[in-house]
Amino acid sequence: MVETDTPSPPWQVSEWLNTSHPITLAGLRGKVVVLHAFQILCPGCVSDGLPQAARISAIFPSERVAVIGLHTVFEHHDVMGPKALRAFLSEYRIRFPVGIDQAAHDSSIPLTMRAYGLQGTPSVVVFDGEGRVRFSRLGQVEDLHLGAVIGELLVSARLGETPELASSAGDPSRASCGDDACVAGVTR
Amino acid sequence: MVETDTPSPPWQVSEWLNTSHPITLAGLRGKVVVLHAFQILCPGCVSDGLPQAARISAIFPSERVAVIGLHTVFEHHDVMGPKALRAFLSEYRIRFPVGIDQAAHDSSIPLTMRAYGLQGTPSVVVFDGEGRVRFSRLGQVEDLHLGAVIGELLVSARLGETPELASSAGDPSRASCGDDACVAGVTR
Amino acid sequence: MVETDTPSPPWQVSEWLNTSHPITLAGLRGKVVVLHAFQILCPGCVSDGLPQAARISAIFPSERVAVIGLHTVFEHHDVMGPKALRAFLSEYRIRFPVGIDQAAHDSSIPLTMRAYGLQGTPSVVVFDGEGRVRFSRLGQVEDLHLGAVIGELLVSARLGETPELASSAGDPSRASCGDDACVAGVTR
Amino acid sequence: MVETDTPSPPWQVSEWLNTSHPITLAGLRGKVVVLHAFQILCPGCVSDGLPQAARISAIFPSERVAVIGLHTVFEHHDVMGPKALRAFLSEYRIRFPVGIDQAAHDSSIPLTMRAYGLQGTPSVVVFDGEGRVRFSRLGQVEDLHLGAVIGELLVSARLGETPELASSAGDPSRASCGDDACVAGVTR
Repeated sequence: MVETDTPSPPWQVSEWLNTSHPITLAGLRGKVVVLHAFQILCPGCVSDGLPQAARISAIFPSERVAVIGLHTVFEHHDVMGPKALRAFLSEYRIRFPVGIDQAAHDSSIPLTMRAYGLQGTPSVVVFDGEGRVRFSRLGQVEDLHLGAVIGELLVSARLGETPELASSAGDPSRASCGDDACVAGVTR
Repeated sequence: MVETDTPSPPWQVSEWLNTSHPITLAGLRGKVVVLHAFQILCPGCVSDGLPQAARISAIFPSERVAVIGLHTVFEHHDVMGPKALRAFLSEYRIRFPVGIDQAAHDSSIPLTMRAYGLQGTPSVVVFDGEGRVRFSRLGQVEDLHLGAVIGELLVSARLGETPELASSAGDPSRASCGDDACVAGVTR
Repeated sequence: MVETDTPSPPWQVSEWLNTSHPITLAGLRGKVVVLHAFQILCPGCVSDGLPQAARISAIFPSERVAVIGLHTVFEHHDVMGPKALRAFLSEYRIRFPVGIDQAAHDSSIPLTMRAYGLQGTPSVVVFDGEGRVRFSRLGQVEDLHLGAVIGELLVSARLGETPELASSAGDPSRASCGDDACVAGVTR
Repeated sequence: MVETDTPSPPWQVSEWLNTSHPITLAGLRGKVVVLHAFQILCPGCVSDGLPQAARISAIFPSERVAVIGLHTVFEHHDVMGPKALRAFLSEYRIRFPVGIDQAAHDSSIPLTMRAYGLQGTPSVVVFDGEGRVRFSRLGQVEDLHLGAVIGELLVSARLGETPELASSAGDPSRASCGDDACVAGVTR
């Protein structure tokens, strides 16, 4: 659980797919934003994370909840380039916008992944209507839990409040994956 | 989706299981309450509804969200009595409180089921912290959707607000079961 | 795994459902017979065993493979009588023949269950075309494994051979339930 | 269902993974052989076909049943090369031998896929102990059905018989995908 009053880092994206124009956090102001970080060769992303993102996209109205994918390649870089990603999105019929996280010159970790301190894939980051990070988690998150986070932020967005997330009290997630053990991702 | 300012009908329960004392809606004031109406011989209740209720009970802290079962027997009355229910709860390891809906003298539909206008089983009714019905649905509800309803009401409970449920805009439920067609329940 | 040249005990059934006439092992000569022992209040039977039996019934031609249910009540006798079973079969839309295992006067274990040495429910017993027990297992059996047993016996039935079951070499079952620990069944 | 007395075409493989030496059908004589044709960007292969192949590999003793993968790339060739396949096998922890189907000079369809008349991916081809094709199917095949095919061939392999497959009588497969509609594969 991450909560902060400091502004969120900008998304550094080298190319956008499934959208006619680049997407910024500022441009999504007023909406709850669910950012799903994945890699196409990450089994947990394919079996759990991406289907969950697609369900969110199908269930919630797009004028209130935005679902954005972020291809955060930190391993096997040479076989997870833009062409491979494009083929993957087509075969898996993923329709929501996906950005390619900008590769770093000095690290295998791409820039946005590093700026947000993501430990691996799949990771989900939820922003409130003001663009603040309100939830960030590595690994599988239960639908009931993530739904509650979205529900709370939907009310906050409407009321202009920034309450602590009650749904995160007690941290109900059963992530099987410790922070350190998954630095290289839950794909291992 | 049911929303009303009229007070909710009291629960009419002939016997409580899994609890040392009778439970009333008034006694749960301040909590979000998820009431799960089921029958032990209802396939959709066993495969979907009751496991979902158990997940809610496991994920959300009990001081904020109360999960209550209601055995609303409207068919096969002679084989779904209290002894059968008790054996069922034991075998399925259901730990949350379950009330037996009071049988009616003049109808196969028990009293609480009738008072709340429930059309069959499984049905889920969600109350806000003031005891008002904020969501009522027959059939399967997706975890993301129900989670969002709970999340919104958790904020409302804290803020003392009664906002319209944003998560229900567009009614994303994919219930396969029309109101009329399921008067005798989704168990058919 | 049980293999024997001694004749199988007769099925002792107090009442047959889903069939117009009593069924005997002798009457099924020439077919592979899959006997599924279950109880209606046994969670593993409802979630795994009975759906597997229904899949077998749907996949294999009935003139070669017979699927028979056996309601082996060994606990909660007063709430798992014939009326409850009949309501259950109707609600779960189970179409294959089901016999009620004859209750014993001196034991909670019914007669056929005792004669076959079944340890609990769900149990599956597979007979070859000569009515000999060729496979008997408590708990969940994987579809691939059970399919292979049926396939081997289908060939044997045609060839009149009684080969050892190659598919059972190494006993691939991942039954989570030891013989002794489940005397009272996997329903516990 | 394909049955033939003509010898099976040889496998034309440009590179073998997960094995120290090239594998030939002749070298597997005496075993039932399950050949699983897949592509790493084929959703049905990842969700169903490959896990089924892994289950077969885990359940049946390797001295009786051989499970072989065949990477039959017929689309997106530039992003499904050997390096991508190697990364995929590592991330998905696939341990059984996988051959890369030899690319054709004059077609997008690789040579072995063409020689066996495979229509797309996932496809499963089962050979008897004599190396003859006894079962070939595009799309998802139920575990019970495939298990029965393997079981029948296990007996045949031992007895030296070539009986018609009883388990395929009536063709129980529920493949959702017609031959023509899937020429470009079930990956679409």
